[in-house]
Amino acid sequence: MENFRDYREFTGSRSDKFYKSTMFQSSRLLLGLNCLDPGQEQHVHVHGDQDKFYYVVEGTGEFTVGAERYAAETGIVVWAPAGVEHGVTNKGSERLVLLVGIAS
Amino acid sequence: MENFRDYREFTGSRSDKFYKSTMFQSSRLLLGLNCLDPGQEQHVHVHGDQDKFYYVVEGTGEFTVGAERYAAETGIVVWAPAGVEHGVTNKGSERLVLLVGIAS
Repeated sequence: MENFRDYREFTGSRSDKFYKSTMFQSSRLLLGLNCLDPGQEQHVHVHGDQDKFYYVVEGTGEFTVGAERYAAETGIVVWAPAGVEHGVTNKGSERLVLLVGIAS
Repeated sequence: MENFRDYREFTGSRSDKFYKSTMFQSSRLLLGLNCLDPGQEQHVHVHGDQDKFYYVVEGTGEFTVGAERYAAETGIVVWAPAGVEHGVTNKGSERLVLLVGIAS
């Protein structure tokens, strides 16, 4: 099955930083997971010419996007357009699993 | 909250065809929902120069992508690259909710 992936097979954990995996990739779109253990953080950063989204699959993430801050639970879509600073921290007690897409 | 959306606020139903909604959009990426009631179908079609993904949020969809056919449940990511025929049918008894992204 080339065009079907179960996200549960792409989750993971690292002790030194949050875990990233790639599920699919083309010249237009990178699609993968960011997995943050409790206490882990993706520092606020910016993509100059890529739009990014996160979909919260498991857990709760404390997101920053531009001037907005929001604790996003399962079912929330987060949009970080090109040029807008964004980051996320897992302040909860469960792992945070995010489906992430970056469009170039 | 400009950059955060709850998918549950973007679901819907139509009697004549499946329901589409847009959550976020840029020149690079359209992100939204496809909601298929039991029995509804998205006919097999192709995008010549756009890559598309589906993430199954609720229900089960019988997907066709190229020569592959697969009954995808919640947690499955489906990848339909530019030029590859794809479609989906809801043969189940619950609504099918798909997070969909189209990258141009």
